[in-house]
Amino acid sequence: MENITKISETLDREIDRLNLSGKPSGLYDPIRYILSLGGKRVRPLLTLAAGEMFSDSAFIAMPQALAIEVFHNFTLLHDDIMDEAPLRRNQETVHLKWNVNTGILSGDAMLIKAYQLLSDTPAAHLPNILRLFNETAIGVCEGQQYDMEFEERDNVTIPEYVEMIRLKTAVLLACALQTGSLVGGASQKDAEKMYEIGESLGIAFQIQDDILDAFGTEKVGKRKGGDIISNKKTFLLLSAKELATGNTAESLTTWINAKSFNEEEKVAAVLAIFETLDIKTIAQNEMIKYSDKAFQLLSELEIGEERKQNVLAILNLLLKREF
Amino acid sequence: MENITKISETLDREIDRLNLSGKPSGLYDPIRYILSLGGKRVRPLLTLAAGEMFSDSAFIAMPQALAIEVFHNFTLLHDDIMDEAPLRRNQETVHLKWNVNTGILSGDAMLIKAYQLLSDTPAAHLPNILRLFNETAIGVCEGQQYDMEFEERDNVTIPEYVEMIRLKTAVLLACALQTGSLVGGASQKDAEKMYEIGESLGIAFQIQDDILDAFGTEKVGKRKGGDIISNKKTFLLLSAKELATGNTAESLTTWINAKSFNEEEKVAAVLAIFETLDIKTIAQNEMIKYSDKAFQLLSELEIGEERKQNVLAILNLLLKREF
Repeated sequence: MENITKISETLDREIDRLNLSGKPSGLYDPIRYILSLGGKRVRPLLTLAAGEMFSDSAFIAMPQALAIEVFHNFTLLHDDIMDEAPLRRNQETVHLKWNVNTGILSGDAMLIKAYQLLSDTPAAHLPNILRLFNETAIGVCEGQQYDMEFEERDNVTIPEYVEMIRLKTAVLLACALQTGSLVGGASQKDAEKMYEIGESLGIAFQIQDDILDAFGTEKVGKRKGGDIISNKKTFLLLSAKELATGNTAESLTTWINAKSFNEEEKVAAVLAIFETLDIKTIAQNEMIKYSDKAFQLLSELEIGEERKQNVLAILNLLLKREF
Repeated sequence: MENITKISETLDREIDRLNLSGKPSGLYDPIRYILSLGGKRVRPLLTLAAGEMFSDSAFIAMPQALAIEVFHNFTLLHDDIMDEAPLRRNQETVHLKWNVNTGILSGDAMLIKAYQLLSDTPAAHLPNILRLFNETAIGVCEGQQYDMEFEERDNVTIPEYVEMIRLKTAVLLACALQTGSLVGGASQKDAEKMYEIGESLGIAFQIQDDILDAFGTEKVGKRKGGDIISNKKTFLLLSAKELATGNTAESLTTWINAKSFNEEEKVAAVLAIFETLDIKTIAQNEMIKYSDKAFQLLSELEIGEERKQNVLAILNLLLKREF
């Protein structure tokens, strides 16, 4: 097996080498910019590791890995416009560094570029992988739409929330694993199991993210309790709303509806409510349910344990952060 | 040959039947809305007519025709946001009827939907047609970027303008014809000739549009001389700037730089300058050069004249408007 650090370095080199220096530069500069901001490159690494798992070649699914990373960054670019986000990975977002029109158009070009990379798939696999990618991409749009609609709604249920994060986050991780597997020569059955692993991983990862925002240590560029301050409908807040009764429910509603407040005070008060309701444990249990499912599915695959090591390493990396 | 009106009716029915009633409706309603606004459906008709030309079946290229129409409407949706256009086909634009975020996201979903339709292409043709569609789609983005950049530039040349309209308008017509031809079974050589026909048609059509805006009869919802009022860098204005000298050049510059003016007066004055410089004839000659090339290329194709009738009819329809 290839060392995962080496895979990651090769991937970064390939991203740098993407043919994105065309004219007009006003279209391509923002694309190079957002891709250069880095990140953990989780999705393409999953694609490559899945390809290696079934083929013994760590780079067999490189075009597809690049397609998925470019697609992911396209969604970040357009989402940042919609969310009016000033920063992405601690750097100025494209629509601020350039302007909104540039952000829209360069994002469109990235989506097309993703398909261009994907079209390098061997003809035998192309229809299947294209279909999967299309369904995934539409799913991500549906997830983003739900996410925006949830901001305006007061009656979001936990199953609705899980479905939203499944679409917005999990299906792309699932697509990454299934695509790499198919290119690596997996059977349709194994490839579908890899999809399920990605789906569970994605949901677990997002719930973990919700937990870390409230209970984790402060991260660079990310304020602890930011979700609480902005009333973001996370797994934690939705669980608390569902479970709170009497004075606790009243207090929670008061903090949610407060127009002006001291931020630290609000975070502390809502965290206290979470504690009363044991929300952290509930969320951890839910996260572990999905996390366990991902590891369980991986262990069920009838393939040498040695071959699973890199996929396993990425899963461990993503799901073993400290609470 | 199928009657072109009947082809058009079948196409409209297929557009109505597109599977676009999914959830969340906030994502899909705007897509159905913009597709329902109609228009001449020039691009999908070209695709179908080209498919028929090589296969004798008028509907062989229906998935590709639909893909191209959905893609075209995606570009209209996002362009309308970038241009802050209030109306599209005399109806409210999506970003006004809903909002900008909805316009961005529904547009993204349309682009993906176009690829979903395209993926119904028979496996033998898929890699070739996907490659062509990708190149075309990127070209359209490049054209839109040039168009936006031209608004800020004072030194746009006529060759630059022709390249911009080639990318923004012509390559999609070219792709429509080539795609239909390939699905219909044309040789690569014939299919590439069809591409060139579409490219010439597109450039001729856009120059004709520039002429009609200045010299045509008033159209519903479109003000005669609108391009002149807004200093749009059309073939006419760029030619006039290139040819004008002395007092004529001075007068043209004055009108272009005027901050406040009577619109009718400006249109009359610039038209008078165009007349002095014989701009209408120059533009007509340029338009006819491309138009003739399209018809010439079609006549060169070694295929029964009878089979060319529907493509010829569409070319005549598009290029024989009154000046």
